[in-house]
Amino acid sequence: MTSSIKSRSLEERIDEIESRTAIADIIAGYCEGTDRRDIDRFMSIWHDDAEYLIPGGRGDFRGTAEIRRSQEVIGKVWKETYHWTTNHTARFENADRATGRSDAIAVCVHPDGRISWVACTYHDIYERRSGVWKLARRLVERYFVSAPQDVELLPPF
Amino acid sequence: MTSSIKSRSLEERIDEIESRTAIADIIAGYCEGTDRRDIDRFMSIWHDDAEYLIPGGRGDFRGTAEIRRSQEVIGKVWKETYHWTTNHTARFENADRATGRSDAIAVCVHPDGRISWVACTYHDIYERRSGVWKLARRLVERYFVSAPQDVELLPPF
Amino acid sequence: MTSSIKSRSLEERIDEIESRTAIADIIAGYCEGTDRRDIDRFMSIWHDDAEYLIPGGRGDFRGTAEIRRSQEVIGKVWKETYHWTTNHTARFENADRATGRSDAIAVCVHPDGRISWVACTYHDIYERRSGVWKLARRLVERYFVSAPQDVELLPPF
Repeated sequence: MTSSIKSRSLEERIDEIESRTAIADIIAGYCEGTDRRDIDRFMSIWHDDAEYLIPGGRGDFRGTAEIRRSQEVIGKVWKETYHWTTNHTARFENADRATGRSDAIAVCVHPDGRISWVACTYHDIYERRSGVWKLARRLVERYFVSAPQDVELLPPF
Repeated sequence: MTSSIKSRSLEERIDEIESRTAIADIIAGYCEGTDRRDIDRFMSIWHDDAEYLIPGGRGDFRGTAEIRRSQEVIGKVWKETYHWTTNHTARFENADRATGRSDAIAVCVHPDGRISWVACTYHDIYERRSGVWKLARRLVERYFVSAPQDVELLPPF
Repeated sequence: MTSSIKSRSLEERIDEIESRTAIADIIAGYCEGTDRRDIDRFMSIWHDDAEYLIPGGRGDFRGTAEIRRSQEVIGKVWKETYHWTTNHTARFENADRATGRSDAIAVCVHPDGRISWVACTYHDIYERRSGVWKLARRLVERYFVSAPQDVELLPPF
């Protein structure tokens, strides 16, 4: 992905590959954390001063306390959420910082049980600090939140 | 992903990365195998003594013969299935064993042609035996199977 | 993924892993390019003589000019598209050529605002030429295009 790929050491190249794995884990952790309402998992993916920006009415959340509060805000809007994130790409600015992009589709359940289909792109900045990759910034570009649908989500049979 | 990452040899680190690729192939192979009704592809991802557990009424399948039978069971319930698996993470216990988690959304078609939306998480154990990564265990945590919807799945135009 | 994996040099093994990353970027770029109507991104993933084949009525597009035209064709059929690609696998024939398979679900918006759910598999050939991985061929196996649904895709709130 970088033009100087061949001049880098094997160590540097493996480090970038492992960084990609760590970043993919963050992306999955966002979905696991928010969908399973696992606040520890959710908080583990953000740096202390991270920005979590959701234009279009949901709000901007900056720093640990605010990002933690985002989950209360979202928890009031949606009874349940299910996110599936795909199409991930990452570009490394240097060994410790990368930008990324991924697309998600989600089923979000209103308090009355009806569902909305949601589509968005996550525009991310990842940083490695003290050896740990986390989100420095996530901007959620939402494309649509469908009108509520009467689709009963029954338990499995 | 492990704390001892820097003390491992390049060989060990590359081996883990290649193992991740092999595991990702298993996850894709599950969908390909069951959706395309390709029983050879489906069976190729399981160890002989693997456990395939689907709580909530579908059944538990242990070992090659039972896991093969699972596809007959599922084939009777659903005329067609389409699975999309995302949000995959894997944690290595050692070089030859890892646990994993991924989320799937599926469109499942009833014999009468109506569809259900299905959401689940796969909780996996992967093991490398004789040099080959396969599933030792998959537990399917299904969150919902939607009430049947009248959505006609027409051939492409 | 290959039987000779252990006899290859670390350099060769890392090169394949990096190639997989480049290929994953192509797959994401297809969705980003066509969904965001970013024609430069879309065109960047194809070799000059690539084949883009969509049986079932959409057409076959061969070479840069035709592949560029495909986006005009698709732009007339769909007002908007949203693709989520998962279940990717790749098999290397040699260091510079691989075949791949991935599954996508899409929401496609008709000019009248109704939506269709679309499911397909991409059957790909990737080639590295002059050091750059691109698609040499993509065959889109579409399974269904649902009857139009009255699902209003509202702006986020």
